[in-house]
Amino acid sequence: MRFHTRKWVKPEDLNPNGTLFGGKLLAWIDEEAALYTAIQLENSKVVTKYISEINFTSSARQGDIIEIGMDVANFGSSSLTLKCEVRNKMTRETILTVDNIIMVNLGEDGKPSPHGKTKIEFVKDRLK
Amino acid sequence: MRFHTRKWVKPEDLNPNGTLFGGKLLAWIDEEAALYTAIQLENSKVVTKYISEINFTSSARQGDIIEIGMDVANFGSSSLTLKCEVRNKMTRETILTVDNIIMVNLGEDGKPSPHGKTKIEFVKDRLK
Amino acid sequence: MRFHTRKWVKPEDLNPNGTLFGGKLLAWIDEEAALYTAIQLENSKVVTKYISEINFTSSARQGDIIEIGMDVANFGSSSLTLKCEVRNKMTRETILTVDNIIMVNLGEDGKPSPHGKTKIEFVKDRLK
Amino acid sequence: MRFHTRKWVKPEDLNPNGTLFGGKLLAWIDEEAALYTAIQLENSKVVTKYISEINFTSSARQGDIIEIGMDVANFGSSSLTLKCEVRNKMTRETILTVDNIIMVNLGEDGKPSPHGKTKIEFVKDRLK
Amino acid sequence: MRFHTRKWVKPEDLNPNGTLFGGKLLAWIDEEAALYTAIQLENSKVVTKYISEINFTSSARQGDIIEIGMDVANFGSSSLTLKCEVRNKMTRETILTVDNIIMVNLGEDGKPSPHGKTKIEFVKDRLK
Amino acid sequence: MRFHTRKWVKPEDLNPNGTLFGGKLLAWIDEEAALYTAIQLENSKVVTKYISEINFTSSARQGDIIEIGMDVANFGSSSLTLKCEVRNKMTRETILTVDNIIMVNLGEDGKPSPHGKTKIEFVKDRLK
Repeated sequence: MRFHTRKWVKPEDLNPNGTLFGGKLLAWIDEEAALYTAIQLENSKVVTKYISEINFTSSARQGDIIEIGMDVANFGSSSLTLKCEVRNKMTRETILTVDNIIMVNLGEDGKPSPHGKTKIEFVKDRLK
Repeated sequence: MRFHTRKWVKPEDLNPNGTLFGGKLLAWIDEEAALYTAIQLENSKVVTKYISEINFTSSARQGDIIEIGMDVANFGSSSLTLKCEVRNKMTRETILTVDNIIMVNLGEDGKPSPHGKTKIEFVKDRLK
Repeated sequence: MRFHTRKWVKPEDLNPNGTLFGGKLLAWIDEEAALYTAIQLENSKVVTKYISEINFTSSARQGDIIEIGMDVANFGSSSLTLKCEVRNKMTRETILTVDNIIMVNLGEDGKPSPHGKTKIEFVKDRLK
Repeated sequence: MRFHTRKWVKPEDLNPNGTLFGGKLLAWIDEEAALYTAIQLENSKVVTKYISEINFTSSARQGDIIEIGMDVANFGSSSLTLKCEVRNKMTRETILTVDNIIMVNLGEDGKPSPHGKTKIEFVKDRLK
Repeated sequence: MRFHTRKWVKPEDLNPNGTLFGGKLLAWIDEEAALYTAIQLENSKVVTKYISEINFTSSARQGDIIEIGMDVANFGSSSLTLKCEVRNKMTRETILTVDNIIMVNLGEDGKPSPHGKTKIEFVKDRLK
Repeated sequence: MRFHTRKWVKPEDLNPNGTLFGGKLLAWIDEEAALYTAIQLENSKVVTKYISEINFTSSARQGDIIEIGMDVANFGSSSLTLKCEVRNKMTRETILTVDNIIMVNLGEDGKPSPHGKTKIEFVKDRLK
């Protein structure tokens, strides 16, 4: 699994108990899943269809740096299934894991559409 | 299931495709689960521990009004399990369902602590 | 008066003195007034025209849960007048009251337009 | 009346109808009233106690520049009463007026406290 | 240099160390530069092209009031170069200075376009 | 240069002309510089001291995915100088470059403090 996007936990990200607000973390994951999918499928018209069990293993505090990892679990014909781990960048302690996030590829008409992809691609190879 | 909190979908809530950003919706649900739990357990020191499968049944658009419903699925000794439905307020079309959101009751020391509750209570009865 | 929408006071909602920022509270009320009106008039094209005196009776602190109540004060031909109370969900202490919020119903052309409503309706009755 | 703070209406400030969200405007005014009061009373521990009638005279659209004007209506012993006008910077069309915003000066204990001020002062004179 | 826009440093504006987040300050400056330019050029279609060295001289804390000053350094044919100072409103201590912010005037087609302005104008004179 | 953090340009990130708001981009860069520095110096108490010329080479639109790259330009005794490039993830077109961002390492007392680092380190090596 590759970890790209990083976040610095700021006061605006906290719940009233002073730890990272879970809802903020979920929003960060959903954005990462969407853009990871858009990159793989070369289409920014993608939506989240399903998220499997989410386990909050540990929390994060103000000043912590977290990183969000995504990997492909499966290529469907018009969907992409991701798995996700969020961890503390400095200690590598796991904060949260999700086994399956199903993202759907949409066509111009806003309906599911085949994407024709079957394996992970890197932008640098496409641009060669 | 009772539906309380309502949201008006504004431009700041949209993804780049012009529909409600899933991450925003997840943040709204997490806040609602936390405050619903705080009300039931009479303790605002609560955290999200686990969220079961999330099905995004339909989407919402700018100007739509959505409402978030919560119900208790189970009372644990130091946790509370909720179920959740988000729907379009005007059409009652389901937008998203979650079967189990496990919220944990924390003590002063930040560790799980028994809450002593076994059934849903209403604030109006407590204040009698 | 019915109280629906609830908010959990988070660090991002505070003024520099550590209490709920009044401006955030006013924004929450305006959104609730707009969506309440959109529900009643079955038209999401509504705008705030006038707000009568606002009394800040007490404040709220980080971790407090507040709820926003709306009721109809009067049905005009192209407007709806609401009254509003915000209170602490747990203690029912009043935080703020507003006697009149005049919302205007707009037509397709963006000008005031008769809405034809004369009494409070419930979505569940409309959908029967 | 002096107009200082300016805002550029961006997509994040719009309601679902594409005009400036009234709640955002109210939040801007409340912040301006608070900081204007803090400057006059040389105390940043101030709270909004009361806002008189608010008339929304016209609206603003994406890309508009608005400016917020404040003036002192009255010096109380532990309060300051302001009046406010918001207008379009380019056309000077009035967007909103408020006759009285009562701000209260708080002491270290968080209770109303005399501020000893009786007239408008300018920072440049204080620093001479 | 004239100082117009003011900001009250709130918890949502802080970095994890509890001082004003530099990125928030940069966003405030960029907005002020854009609207100052739009006012001078009577065109809201303007973009930031270049920002010269930024010196962070001092910081700001929760509750501080800061003010943002802009002045014209040079009128180009399709651009406007500004200089900027941000200071603490109460103490006049400098927080940050920027010598050159080059803003470009865009035409309907989104490309640089001559603006025909050669000196600072005031809206009140235009409206006479 | 390594590119880690990615952003999906959403409606809330746009200026009134419908392109990525420069101020938002600057805020993203400042956060990335701060967390990159915190990782290298193993200290989250860091502040931005100086940013050299910023060239906005191209813009980004709603739905674009951008990535932020950071590299070390120089290790000072109590500072770290970074260089930064922001580019479009899909096309690799450069959006913005900054040659020098000087970040300062602070001690417990909030004053500049030697960090003892002289070369780039990777967390995975530290954790061995």
